[in-house]
Amino acid sequence: MPAIPPPAADRSAALEAFCRAVPGPDEATAAAARRRLDTLTKPPGSLGQIEALLARLAASTGQVCPSLERRAVLLAAADHGVAAEGVSAFPQAVTGQMVLNFLSGGAAINALAAAANARIILVDAGIVADVPDHPDLARLSIRRGSGNIAREPALTRAEATAALLAGAALVERHNANGLDILALGEMGIANTTPAAALTGACVGAPPALTVGRGTGVDDATLERKRAVVATALRRVADAHAIGVIDSPDAAPLALDPLTILAELGGLEIAVLAGAALASAARRIPVLLDGYITTSAALIAAALAPNLRAHLFASHCSAEPGHALALAHLGLTAEQGAGPLLRLDLRLGEGSGAALALPLLASAARLMREMATFEQAGVAQQADEEAVR
Amino acid sequence: MPAIPPPAADRSAALEAFCRAVPGPDEATAAAARRRLDTLTKPPGSLGQIEALLARLAASTGQVCPSLERRAVLLAAADHGVAAEGVSAFPQAVTGQMVLNFLSGGAAINALAAAANARIILVDAGIVADVPDHPDLARLSIRRGSGNIAREPALTRAEATAALLAGAALVERHNANGLDILALGEMGIANTTPAAALTGACVGAPPALTVGRGTGVDDATLERKRAVVATALRRVADAHAIGVIDSPDAAPLALDPLTILAELGGLEIAVLAGAALASAARRIPVLLDGYITTSAALIAAALAPNLRAHLFASHCSAEPGHALALAHLGLTAEQGAGPLLRLDLRLGEGSGAALALPLLASAARLMREMATFEQAGVAQQADEEAVR
Repeated sequence: MPAIPPPAADRSAALEAFCRAVPGPDEATAAAARRRLDTLTKPPGSLGQIEALLARLAASTGQVCPSLERRAVLLAAADHGVAAEGVSAFPQAVTGQMVLNFLSGGAAINALAAAANARIILVDAGIVADVPDHPDLARLSIRRGSGNIAREPALTRAEATAALLAGAALVERHNANGLDILALGEMGIANTTPAAALTGACVGAPPALTVGRGTGVDDATLERKRAVVATALRRVADAHAIGVIDSPDAAPLALDPLTILAELGGLEIAVLAGAALASAARRIPVLLDGYITTSAALIAAALAPNLRAHLFASHCSAEPGHALALAHLGLTAEQGAGPLLRLDLRLGEGSGAALALPLLASAARLMREMATFEQAGVAQQADEEAVR
Repeated sequence: MPAIPPPAADRSAALEAFCRAVPGPDEATAAAARRRLDTLTKPPGSLGQIEALLARLAASTGQVCPSLERRAVLLAAADHGVAAEGVSAFPQAVTGQMVLNFLSGGAAINALAAAANARIILVDAGIVADVPDHPDLARLSIRRGSGNIAREPALTRAEATAALLAGAALVERHNANGLDILALGEMGIANTTPAAALTGACVGAPPALTVGRGTGVDDATLERKRAVVATALRRVADAHAIGVIDSPDAAPLALDPLTILAELGGLEIAVLAGAALASAARRIPVLLDGYITTSAALIAAALAPNLRAHLFASHCSAEPGHALALAHLGLTAEQGAGPLLRLDLRLGEGSGAALALPLLASAARLMREMATFEQAGVAQQADEEAVR
């Protein structure tokens, strides 16, 4: 991060520049990838959704045979004022404790990132606990924890912009050493609540459709969490004198994405949204994890619609709103962009993304290493005479 | 393989010994694995089906934290007389051509096995084409291609036994150098037809439920393929004077598994069944690929019911009978043993198993490398006071 942050006006301009820089899908390269797939020694289409994945990787990267060898998980942690409403099964102190666990290598994401040959970019985007400095921990000094969205905005617009740009700057810095694919991960006690609020606001869906059990709350807490998200959405609608979201056919909140992020988001969510934009601007595919990273992508895609071409869904979690959010981003099997895994994961940390990274890496190797029918001297489809 | 095969009686005894040697699930170790999972720094159950997978890996291996570093794909190729009925989109010559492609490293399984750090054990179990000797190609000399199951048994019982034992011997030989997990793969033009016939015979299902498009046949060929499987099932029922399979609520064929394999199977299917038995006998988990490898597992599990504890489903393919066969083996999500991937694959070669291998490897690393709550100093579930 620069020692002296730029003035607020410059920051907005910098954010707009990132958004404008996100290219759309490279359809010509995607078509070339599809043509190449049909020359490889396998029955046409026999790799199923892996073939659709390879076409989308080509559209994102602009390369028929992209390399996905240099992998990173951006793991952003922050705290949430809404934890005070009792919406999580865990106390807020766990955010900082888990950051220490990440640093000492004992968390799920450490094992999974190591298995996937991915480095972890860990950032304290604004946790409440005091965590000692560590060479592997990037720190932002925007604020410690966001506001309680049931009562107040999570962030000011300036804070949200600063967090977005900080996420973008992290990607820029790490890309200087080479980066082929960026997986997103997060840690923040209570952060499925802002994820549900953001999803509701962006998709136009009431809490009944967006609020789930997170890491495992009981029935009473689930009801409380739904009420909190409803209160937050009503507060924002009242504050801006716009229509509230109170039915499954409601419209999205009629607000610009930065305002939605500031009102209902969180610091790690903003960092992840900015990172996704900067990554996509470099044609580096972005691999989503669960509900929280996908809610960050909803905001980022609202800021820069071209982002969708660079988003990849690693899994669909047990959270009911996650499928809604993925569908809003076009990340469905019907559109050749469905989640690669459905394993009822609900951990976060980037764990699902890290589990899926080897699948993308394997797919990329297929495209680079397989022989064509011609090269291998293998017969293609039999003619009708031959099979009868 | 021994230079002089043992006499037929010894072979049956050897097969029975392999079947008897397959241990049941180690439930105590599975319970210990479940207990350990609940001490690791993650919300209980938050790794979803990965946790069920780890419990099953513990039950199979007898180890709470098994290593899955030494991985192999047993890739068995053979030809099928039933190809003469015009049931495949590809000419029979492709089996041999693909074996050459495997040897030169240009096939999908080469790229995927390399990506998964798995070695390929390639065996010519009985292909029709002349393929030159190669140090990486094991050869069986049982017969070249199986009989046309629409008209005659695929194999004699002696041939089926010899192929089963050859598969077992391959595993024994490679296990001498260390083997932690065995993935199964196959190549054989027309082999979804015997797979459908075997599945129908073992599950008790008519061709409408077991026959699909394989690597991509058209409507007319699909109808012909259904008729061929119906003819084969009727031929076997008539030959043994037992009830035919002609409705969805039919019983399985009332024959011993070796007879079903000889009547309706194929050489690579028998080799894979024997390999699965030998692997399970050593508590080495067996990772299935698609429909053909799963049909081999149906026969193997009929020979040794304990085998089920050692079977893992990598994916559920686009073939309609595959889900039926997996369910018959208890490999469903409801039983905590569902396929890890659903990507509409229909390639074979072990491609789906190789794609899933990194998932199993990642899961195993979670169990070995994650810290416990106590080790990491992370708080567990908040008490009710703290969250309210």
